[in-house]
Amino acid sequence: MRYVVIMAGGAGTRLWPLSRAGQPKQLLPIVGGRSLLRIAVDRGLALVPPENILICTNAAYIDQVAAELPEVPRANLLGEPVGRDSLNAVAWPAAVLAERDPDAVIAQLTADHVIEPLERFHAAMDEAFRVAEADPHALVTLGVVPTEPHVGYGYLHQGAPVPGYPNTVAVREFREKPSLEVARGYLASGEYWWNSGMFVWRADTLLNQVRQLLPVTYGDVIDLAKHPEKLEAIYPNLAKNSIDFAVMEPVSAGKTDAHVLAVALPIDWRDVGGYASLATILTPDGHGNSVEGLVANLDSTRNVIVNRGAAGHVVATLGCEDLVVVATPDVTLVVPVADADRIKELVAQVGGSVGAEYC
Amino acid sequence: MRYVVIMAGGAGTRLWPLSRAGQPKQLLPIVGGRSLLRIAVDRGLALVPPENILICTNAAYIDQVAAELPEVPRANLLGEPVGRDSLNAVAWPAAVLAERDPDAVIAQLTADHVIEPLERFHAAMDEAFRVAEADPHALVTLGVVPTEPHVGYGYLHQGAPVPGYPNTVAVREFREKPSLEVARGYLASGEYWWNSGMFVWRADTLLNQVRQLLPVTYGDVIDLAKHPEKLEAIYPNLAKNSIDFAVMEPVSAGKTDAHVLAVALPIDWRDVGGYASLATILTPDGHGNSVEGLVANLDSTRNVIVNRGAAGHVVATLGCEDLVVVATPDVTLVVPVADADRIKELVAQVGGSVGAEYC
Repeated sequence: MRYVVIMAGGAGTRLWPLSRAGQPKQLLPIVGGRSLLRIAVDRGLALVPPENILICTNAAYIDQVAAELPEVPRANLLGEPVGRDSLNAVAWPAAVLAERDPDAVIAQLTADHVIEPLERFHAAMDEAFRVAEADPHALVTLGVVPTEPHVGYGYLHQGAPVPGYPNTVAVREFREKPSLEVARGYLASGEYWWNSGMFVWRADTLLNQVRQLLPVTYGDVIDLAKHPEKLEAIYPNLAKNSIDFAVMEPVSAGKTDAHVLAVALPIDWRDVGGYASLATILTPDGHGNSVEGLVANLDSTRNVIVNRGAAGHVVATLGCEDLVVVATPDVTLVVPVADADRIKELVAQVGGSVGAEYC
Repeated sequence: MRYVVIMAGGAGTRLWPLSRAGQPKQLLPIVGGRSLLRIAVDRGLALVPPENILICTNAAYIDQVAAELPEVPRANLLGEPVGRDSLNAVAWPAAVLAERDPDAVIAQLTADHVIEPLERFHAAMDEAFRVAEADPHALVTLGVVPTEPHVGYGYLHQGAPVPGYPNTVAVREFREKPSLEVARGYLASGEYWWNSGMFVWRADTLLNQVRQLLPVTYGDVIDLAKHPEKLEAIYPNLAKNSIDFAVMEPVSAGKTDAHVLAVALPIDWRDVGGYASLATILTPDGHGNSVEGLVANLDSTRNVIVNRGAAGHVVATLGCEDLVVVATPDVTLVVPVADADRIKELVAQVGGSVGAEYC
């Protein structure tokens, strides 16, 4: 049977002070009042029924996630006692599902993106499911068709087409984040897709790869799936590994009995990791600013202004360019867009000098 | 007898959103919790007793002024129904005092500045009082000894020394705000002082000049002093004139029976008109920022950050340079220091697009 597993683990510090340690990015009302997790689950609900959706998140967020997703059974909310990187957040749910359903096929999705149009996304996911269901040696990754020479993403080098699946190819190689020059070459060649971090595979296929590559981790996650009461004992001791480095790259290099295929995702794919990307989903004001809430601008352009202050609070800017301005009831943030990737450092300073309650 | 009259009329829009239509700049707690008006009156109390201090302000602020200055008799608070420029804010109190005391000598002071050290200020004012008391044809102005080629002030060209008064000279000419090149020449010559806008004169001497130069205004302010109940009828119909253009310049040019003298004010004289100047009285943070309230900065320099938000509110900046950031419970303002002189335009826009209640 088909399942959707959504990874929603990180705190999303880059959206502080909207996001906080106790209010993670995925649970913020961010796009028309909906959270990224809610949107990701709604995307998944077009593929599978709610009882076939699993969420892997931080244990601290489980109650908030349950409130946000009332239709998802509580037993499908997997809470990590501590973050142990993406391999474990993928292998643990796979082991849980394999225990429940030996024929489980999993679409492993993220909750960090806005994806449009949904029809194309669902069509690509359906093709990926069909590929994985037909080939018990396939790890299927989703490759976003690039629209710019983005240096913030990894790339997939496309190989031979897979007969019978019009949008599926073998993956020749995974490529790490490139230089701008290299990225331009990738884009011009038409042979590269962005590595979306979304996958489809049979649970047993994925677990077999983990068994071959990381037998200790394999034993631990199988043990954990059979004995959920051991969570606190096992999970913190899992080795930190990323799914890309630990599984996808060695498998694509032929180190196991499987191979990597990729299905094209011809979609508008916007990461909502930080303010620069959040800007793309806020309201444009006609002067190049992206705004939310009660805002007054004069001679200001290319700013990202989010006003979630107290009721009636106004954010007013004059002569500002390329700034992020965020107002919340207890924190005001001002940072140039170019420095917004460093907000984590500022949060650390606020935590140390003002108080952890603001972080 | 000696009197002090303090002009405290303007709303101080350049300090919005700290100042508002109903919360004028002079009444804001701004220097160690004291308002500029409170500080100006305290300076005056070293010269005269509280019953000899008059305040000329906007009628709308009279109750706030009375609360701020409990020791000043209510009859000494003159409230303009509408602002009619500086000549009337000077001539009206002079007429009121001349009616009470035919020998009144007035020190006409402002409430826009931080002045240090006070000892020098008081010594200069005492000399100016003595000059005015001895010469019934003297209009005495106070000339701040310049420390930089400031282009935002008018200048006084010093003439011959006045025997018997070591710091007093005749004024050869008033000069309007100069270009930077001209201001540098003034500073290098040692012959120019800044026009402080502070004066000392006998009430009858000043009124005699008004009579000779502006007989209609003279008749009106004398009428008003004798018949306070006519305030609403007379005041709005007074002609708008500045004391400099209408009186000081023609008198210094020999158009009347008086002459203009100047006493040197060798003081640190800081206008608190806007955020650039407010910065000089806030707390330096060691990185070139001037801050007030709970502020966390990372790699930020030369900013003016005033946090008067709700209790516990934090203002955090990262990578910011030369910005003014002001947080209040209902307004957040962000503007480059270089644009802070245009805040009035922004306030007008906020009033039009968001609501007059924020202005």
